[in-house]
Amino acid sequence: MRTIEWRDGTVVTIDQTRLPRETVFLEMRNCREVAEAIKTMKIRGAPLLGAAAAFALALAAYHSKAEKKKELISELESAAEVLKGTRPTAVNLFWAIDRILDKTRGFSGNTRDLVALVVEEAQKIADEDATANRLMGRHGAELIHDGDVVLTHCNAGALATVDYGTALGVIRTAWEQKKNIKVVATETRPKLQGARLTVYELRRDGIPVTLITDNMVGYVMYKRWISKVIVGADRIVRDAVINKVGTYTIAVLAKEHSIPFYVAAPKSTFDLAHASTDVTIEERRREEVTHIGSQRITPEGVNVLNPAFDVTPLEYVTAIICEDGVLHREDFVKFKANT
Amino acid sequence: MRTIEWRDGTVVTIDQTRLPRETVFLEMRNCREVAEAIKTMKIRGAPLLGAAAAFALALAAYHSKAEKKKELISELESAAEVLKGTRPTAVNLFWAIDRILDKTRGFSGNTRDLVALVVEEAQKIADEDATANRLMGRHGAELIHDGDVVLTHCNAGALATVDYGTALGVIRTAWEQKKNIKVVATETRPKLQGARLTVYELRRDGIPVTLITDNMVGYVMYKRWISKVIVGADRIVRDAVINKVGTYTIAVLAKEHSIPFYVAAPKSTFDLAHASTDVTIEERRREEVTHIGSQRITPEGVNVLNPAFDVTPLEYVTAIICEDGVLHREDFVKFKANT
Repeated sequence: MRTIEWRDGTVVTIDQTRLPRETVFLEMRNCREVAEAIKTMKIRGAPLLGAAAAFALALAAYHSKAEKKKELISELESAAEVLKGTRPTAVNLFWAIDRILDKTRGFSGNTRDLVALVVEEAQKIADEDATANRLMGRHGAELIHDGDVVLTHCNAGALATVDYGTALGVIRTAWEQKKNIKVVATETRPKLQGARLTVYELRRDGIPVTLITDNMVGYVMYKRWISKVIVGADRIVRDAVINKVGTYTIAVLAKEHSIPFYVAAPKSTFDLAHASTDVTIEERRREEVTHIGSQRITPEGVNVLNPAFDVTPLEYVTAIICEDGVLHREDFVKFKANT
Repeated sequence: MRTIEWRDGTVVTIDQTRLPRETVFLEMRNCREVAEAIKTMKIRGAPLLGAAAAFALALAAYHSKAEKKKELISELESAAEVLKGTRPTAVNLFWAIDRILDKTRGFSGNTRDLVALVVEEAQKIADEDATANRLMGRHGAELIHDGDVVLTHCNAGALATVDYGTALGVIRTAWEQKKNIKVVATETRPKLQGARLTVYELRRDGIPVTLITDNMVGYVMYKRWISKVIVGADRIVRDAVINKVGTYTIAVLAKEHSIPFYVAAPKSTFDLAHASTDVTIEERRREEVTHIGSQRITPEGVNVLNPAFDVTPLEYVTAIICEDGVLHREDFVKFKANT
């Protein structure tokens, strides 16, 4: 199945906090349940957040008792506010919500048709993401060669998207093309998406993967074991890529070792109207750092930082892979100028 | 008390794997117990390993039933082999063992006097380390200024030494001089010496400390929150500093952000007869990466890397602080030439 699916008024997805230990499906029937699952990272990954938010609006529409269109639109707007309050950094969530709300505003049909339209648009968003990932895979795989060892951070896989994955989609396509590649995955503290999700996905597909702690990236590059880096993105602004904390550290190391640094992300992640200084970096609960699972790892009461993301200026990025193709730095400048 | 102490035929130290949860003292009465405690990292930290190895030989001598000197020396040589097989990278261990064995070889007194000599030399090694740390503190504190935010990695504190600490000794002295400073400590996966030990030590002294995960170093430097980096060392060779894995990653980031990168280590850590290519980087058990405490964090059977150390070429090091003073790069070259 896809990572997220619409089934007649229910949204079904995998609880990503329980992987790889157990596969537990979440069945959500209203917007608040989806918002809660996003906040607690049961649902995570920028493209998946877009689809999840769209489906949350579809749930709100589908189960609405509103008779008048205006009433329904007002309910959807309230639902949108709840969803927008979940996580501030990944832009796909905002993009999907605004895309659906825009559709409703100019709509001339009746209330029932509007419900159908919202559900349809949400499904379209999900379908488009699945397609975009396949396209990114095809474009990006041209950058991956026989013998490459590719380092990736966090999880930019099928679990972060509706299907197939962004960074892992590129790796998957290269593997399906019978290229002899290996992957090095960083564990990605504090939430361990690399150790839990990326390792799980790659092993399921039989792609060779080696797990390292985040602070070993320098060492594996120093040893010349890494040919390429490929990561996803939570938001791409005019001057930078915002992605899981640790991305910038890896980008600096890649530059120092002359290793290409690629970002794979669908255009729904692009936010070229803004610059990095406009972006709020989400600061999450301190317990994510002071504990691992239920285990406390540090003395009580210690001060911590817990930014969920960091900022990688575009000068560190060799190319951005999107559904339109591979945008090298100069192509991205042109792309920006045309949008 | 000091981190390690000799008490009439017993060596007493703190079990560092149990901190900060509980303070458990280890009482060791023979060399094998010390070797086991070193292997399992109940005793860790390069300078402390030197003192522990010295005291282990003192235990071997003190409890020996040998009547002939030759027999005692042969027992000490066997004990030395066991100790040298524990951990290959930190040089202080080898340095302390060789220093004691050298003493025994030219010794002209009787067997009982030789036992006394070994015990005395071990205590001298421990005392000298405590003194060296105070001296390093004084020299290094001149580099630390009011308002500085100092990032440190792993634990180079009192717990890594006989007393006071190397990198944390410098921070402690600056604090005792009433300089208004703050510390950022990396948690230091896989064994979490930063989260467990550095945070514990600094809070006990009332020095403000903020804990981050290892992959946040790039972000805090990007935000210009860090004024200086100071770390310890497990071995300093002609061309590089060998220290806890993650050190090199931090050094590259420091260079990229023009942040001074200091290494504090006693001369017992210096191994200028060798180059980095001569050093064996210890690869530790895979379970340190696949588990945190008793908790598995990744699918079973995954391939992992677990180098305990990494290599930071001297070009990334602003200065080395030792008991003789602050050796800037050019001073270190002269220092090398004179040894």
